[in-house]
Amino acid sequence: MSVTAAIDAVFCPSSIAVVGASSDPAKFGSQVFRNLQMSGFPGALYPISRSSPEVSGVKSVPTLRDLPAPVDLVLLSVPVQHAASAIEDAVAISAKAAVVFTAGFQEVGREGRALQDDMLRRAGGKVRLIGPNCLGVRNFHLPMNASPVAKATLPAGPIAFVSQSGAFGNAAMAALAEARIGMSKLASVGNMADLNHALIFRYLKDDPQTNVIAAFVEGVPDVPQFLDAVAEVSRVKPVVILKGGRSRSGQRAALSHTGSMAGDGRVWDSLLREAGASVVTSSQELFDVAAAFARNGGRRLGGRRAAIFSLAGGPGVVAADHCDEHGIELPALDDKLRELRAIVPPYAALGNPVEVTGQTKREHLGTCAQAIIRQPDVDALIGIAVGLDYKEFADALVAANGEKPVVACVVAENSETILAREGVANYPSVDRAVRALRHLMDRATDRPAPRAPASVDAAPLPDGVLSEARSKIYLAAFGLPVTMEMVAGDADAAVAAAQKIGFPVAVKVSSAEIAHKSDVGGVVLNLKTAPEVRAAVDAMQAKLGRVDVLVQKMVKPGLELIVGAQRNGATGSVVMIGIGGILAEVLDDAVFLRAPATPEAALAALARLRSQKLLDGYRGASAIDRTAVANIVARLSQVVAANPGIVEIDLNPVIADGDGATVVDALIRVDNNQGELR
Amino acid sequence: MSVTAAIDAVFCPSSIAVVGASSDPAKFGSQVFRNLQMSGFPGALYPISRSSPEVSGVKSVPTLRDLPAPVDLVLLSVPVQHAASAIEDAVAISAKAAVVFTAGFQEVGREGRALQDDMLRRAGGKVRLIGPNCLGVRNFHLPMNASPVAKATLPAGPIAFVSQSGAFGNAAMAALAEARIGMSKLASVGNMADLNHALIFRYLKDDPQTNVIAAFVEGVPDVPQFLDAVAEVSRVKPVVILKGGRSRSGQRAALSHTGSMAGDGRVWDSLLREAGASVVTSSQELFDVAAAFARNGGRRLGGRRAAIFSLAGGPGVVAADHCDEHGIELPALDDKLRELRAIVPPYAALGNPVEVTGQTKREHLGTCAQAIIRQPDVDALIGIAVGLDYKEFADALVAANGEKPVVACVVAENSETILAREGVANYPSVDRAVRALRHLMDRATDRPAPRAPASVDAAPLPDGVLSEARSKIYLAAFGLPVTMEMVAGDADAAVAAAQKIGFPVAVKVSSAEIAHKSDVGGVVLNLKTAPEVRAAVDAMQAKLGRVDVLVQKMVKPGLELIVGAQRNGATGSVVMIGIGGILAEVLDDAVFLRAPATPEAALAALARLRSQKLLDGYRGASAIDRTAVANIVARLSQVVAANPGIVEIDLNPVIADGDGATVVDALIRVDNNQGELR
Repeated sequence: MSVTAAIDAVFCPSSIAVVGASSDPAKFGSQVFRNLQMSGFPGALYPISRSSPEVSGVKSVPTLRDLPAPVDLVLLSVPVQHAASAIEDAVAISAKAAVVFTAGFQEVGREGRALQDDMLRRAGGKVRLIGPNCLGVRNFHLPMNASPVAKATLPAGPIAFVSQSGAFGNAAMAALAEARIGMSKLASVGNMADLNHALIFRYLKDDPQTNVIAAFVEGVPDVPQFLDAVAEVSRVKPVVILKGGRSRSGQRAALSHTGSMAGDGRVWDSLLREAGASVVTSSQELFDVAAAFARNGGRRLGGRRAAIFSLAGGPGVVAADHCDEHGIELPALDDKLRELRAIVPPYAALGNPVEVTGQTKREHLGTCAQAIIRQPDVDALIGIAVGLDYKEFADALVAANGEKPVVACVVAENSETILAREGVANYPSVDRAVRALRHLMDRATDRPAPRAPASVDAAPLPDGVLSEARSKIYLAAFGLPVTMEMVAGDADAAVAAAQKIGFPVAVKVSSAEIAHKSDVGGVVLNLKTAPEVRAAVDAMQAKLGRVDVLVQKMVKPGLELIVGAQRNGATGSVVMIGIGGILAEVLDDAVFLRAPATPEAALAALARLRSQKLLDGYRGASAIDRTAVANIVARLSQVVAANPGIVEIDLNPVIADGDGATVVDALIRVDNNQGELR
Repeated sequence: MSVTAAIDAVFCPSSIAVVGASSDPAKFGSQVFRNLQMSGFPGALYPISRSSPEVSGVKSVPTLRDLPAPVDLVLLSVPVQHAASAIEDAVAISAKAAVVFTAGFQEVGREGRALQDDMLRRAGGKVRLIGPNCLGVRNFHLPMNASPVAKATLPAGPIAFVSQSGAFGNAAMAALAEARIGMSKLASVGNMADLNHALIFRYLKDDPQTNVIAAFVEGVPDVPQFLDAVAEVSRVKPVVILKGGRSRSGQRAALSHTGSMAGDGRVWDSLLREAGASVVTSSQELFDVAAAFARNGGRRLGGRRAAIFSLAGGPGVVAADHCDEHGIELPALDDKLRELRAIVPPYAALGNPVEVTGQTKREHLGTCAQAIIRQPDVDALIGIAVGLDYKEFADALVAANGEKPVVACVVAENSETILAREGVANYPSVDRAVRALRHLMDRATDRPAPRAPASVDAAPLPDGVLSEARSKIYLAAFGLPVTMEMVAGDADAAVAAAQKIGFPVAVKVSSAEIAHKSDVGGVVLNLKTAPEVRAAVDAMQAKLGRVDVLVQKMVKPGLELIVGAQRNGATGSVVMIGIGGILAEVLDDAVFLRAPATPEAALAALARLRSQKLLDGYRGASAIDRTAVANIVARLSQVVAANPGIVEIDLNPVIADGDGATVVDALIRVDNNQGELR
């Protein structure tokens, strides 16, 4: 059975059996059964109970195998030790999918993980699973409420929500009810033993009832699969993602909640954005932004220029501040709106914010909004009214929304009803309206980067840390521009090497055992003569024993960057580009990219560093050769993608100037077992 | 009449006259009159109308002078050209205060400013004014609604709101109604021609019905008066401030809204925090934080360590992320809560977040909360439940709140009612709950800095820019540690000076006309011999003409800082300390202080710079002598406070190391007219 058919059985089953229903209404399974009944589910419903002959007025049978007819979907609320055998029953009766509410699996550690793996094995790919450790699914259009939460006042609508937390499902319903917009489908996916975000996203991509996909993610089982799905789906519909576990304590919490490896929050921010998702950092932002996309109906904004159209002075001022904060331009409109002077009071402001005040005659508000929205340098309108309940203002925003996207902060009962009915995104405070608009604007410019094809083969490396010299030899084979250098065993050889390479040179200790060379006096820079080289090598060997040294062509000063690569189960294979040198720790400015990456994607990543001033040539330095840096990043990404044993590469520094970029130091760490993680 | 008596007449009048009432219910004045009637105002009410003999069933008179009895408060809604004469009438009948709704004054420019000044002059300090260009006042306890906005469903409560925007008054009522907490007094103060934030804050400090003061500020007429009031009041009650006009477009908007000079947002952040205010950046944050303080009832938190107590996994994970973002520690609790293992399911998490799940028996939730709140390393509790409406959970949070501060994110109807009734701060999303808690924690540690007494006299300076040499001579007289240096007219004199000062030296062009010395080749550093000095001076004079040069002792390398001072009408006299050198523009890391400042306040400001790593001795450098830097800042603040002609001082760089700090370059800009601004 295809994944699509299985997920179809989850969201649109024609028949459902609830294992664990009973006559005790306090029992989880009984609540689920009752909610299904109450929700108006149109298909057949079967309670399965060993103890009660009847549940909520419906005759029950002891096991799935006793059912008189086949079922599409099985809902499972049984003690953890009985879950696997219930799944075997589901397979036996040819059910298509099961939702496993039961907790106590991988989230409790190794033992639970074994139980979960066993259950999955018995499902055998024949019955596809949602959960375990989840709060069920809903289809608001069918309708169907297959969850223990009764509340179902939310109307059917365009927003689907896939959540690794059942509670956020409840939060979504509460928040979207406030925003007066409905949902299409809700899936609480818990531990995601089988069906996961990626598979459900792809299903929702083709779901005509879903226009926007929102998701709460703690960790994903397969990072490339997940990112591929996000990239594929976000080309078609907005995908808004709240990633939990950004902090260390959040990561610990995610591990005990759903047994998820959350991974580095900064890496996730980069990867999600690269895949074209809208990345948010709070649940309020998640639902606000999902509502904005739903209201906006797939329109792409023309740019980042907005006009503020307001009846309210103070909120207009603060909205302008929020626009500044989010990089939204407010073009000056005074001159262009001169014609409006005749219909607004003398103390109205026509700059931008356009504050017409509550004293403009209501019948003129539509004219004002039209004059503003038709300005060619206005891409969107922010409408503000707080306390003044003017139908004409709401109507003006509705009409403007017909021309270009409008977000509103209208706090006034009747007007709110008009805006909701006519599909204008409205928020109770200006900060939330402006933030939502920013995401609409970001989506207009952020597109999923095209994936780079894997283009190189890489020989395996032995486990452990490679010395600088060996790391560079390995990397140079893939076209990475490393410093010209030679290894020497003693002072004579070092002097000969220096003469061959050409002065000035650096001398560094060359040993895989010594990771922090400078800390032990193992680096001497800028040696200009043979005697200087000899003295440096002698001093180093006197201190550190008979170690090899690396004689290296000095690179002329430039901007120090760090380029790196890492591979782990939580975030997959990524490359990183950041500001290095003395500024590295203070600025903490780095961007991450999925490996392999194209040079174009690497260029785009460079443009996302905060410290653009440094790249553009600060204090008399020339702008760095961005293409040269991007090529290093892209080539490195090919190396880490091609050799699954590499867990870390650190190029620190890469020195860049106007003429190019050079890898000055390098370190490769290999763990051929870890590397099995993708 | 005292200011207190006047403000008392504004908030607690025994009689009110409304000028501009009429029989036309669409008229502003008529709405105000009707709202007063509807609000249940217990005193005498008089409509003043030239056109109608009766307003809303009450006999009216044509002017204030025709009134049969004296009135405390006059409300004014008349055309702008009639406002001043109405105020004269108010003076004639010995009214104590007037609220001027009328717009069209300083917010429209020079002409309006003149009208406003004229009105103020006619009030003559006898009738004190609220407004003009405002939306009136309310006293929820009296009760009294002296505004054109009808809605008055909000209960009387502990939060006062002073707003330069009437619309934010409406927003406050809507937001606090949602938070289920009431207000004491609401004043929309508009242009603040007379009564302003500072005067009303001081009144509210002694108001027994007000526990928390919230304010929206665009600009203030007298910065020192305002900051003194904030410092005085915030020692007694929390003062939560949203400052509008942080951005350039916000500043333009504020100017056309209330004619306010908003000033630099970064400067305001520093000054408000120094004065002990809680600084917020959105209206939602303003009302959320005010509600948190109101619920918390003046308790000071013991520290920044919180415990998350949650029925909900995902929101617990995200709450942990938000704690990290706000610098709130989550101490590990697993071991300390071991006893709870017996009463929570095996898949519950007892770390921190403590996620007991919805399957813990409800009667045990109180025990869990008590076990957590009694941990000595827990200063506050964050309670989370979304969708599970367990009375026992709400009760557990109420009981815990009796021991230590609790903030909650409980989304469940009956529980919300319990929390509101029992005074637990509750929010619809975890980000808002955690942010509110952060402000409670900040207030526990941020106290208003004691003001420095002005301790120096400063001779006036002529208008214009002083040369580096003259600037330093002026500053050295106040004990600022400047570089040892001498001015020389030619190479011979420069060599002699260098020999006197001691090598190495720097040579700089010395001319008030040349502001950016390095840009024209006017700076040569690190000259070690007489011939080097001679060559440098000859080259400089060959290029720039016969200019004087400054021969200066080289300061050994250290951390480059910028110390500055500025004076303007929007933010008053301030000093600034920031990271300088090549890092300045990239880091943009600076803190501002009101002048004069104590060395202790300057030390505290240094501790608020983001780049603490640089100050603590980065990459092998020793930690800088913070006291030496703080002394420079404090002395500079005395200079700018003592000489009102100084509009700008720029010490860039000040070089600091472990042994002290030296002013290496200096520039003073004087404008004895501008300086009249305080």
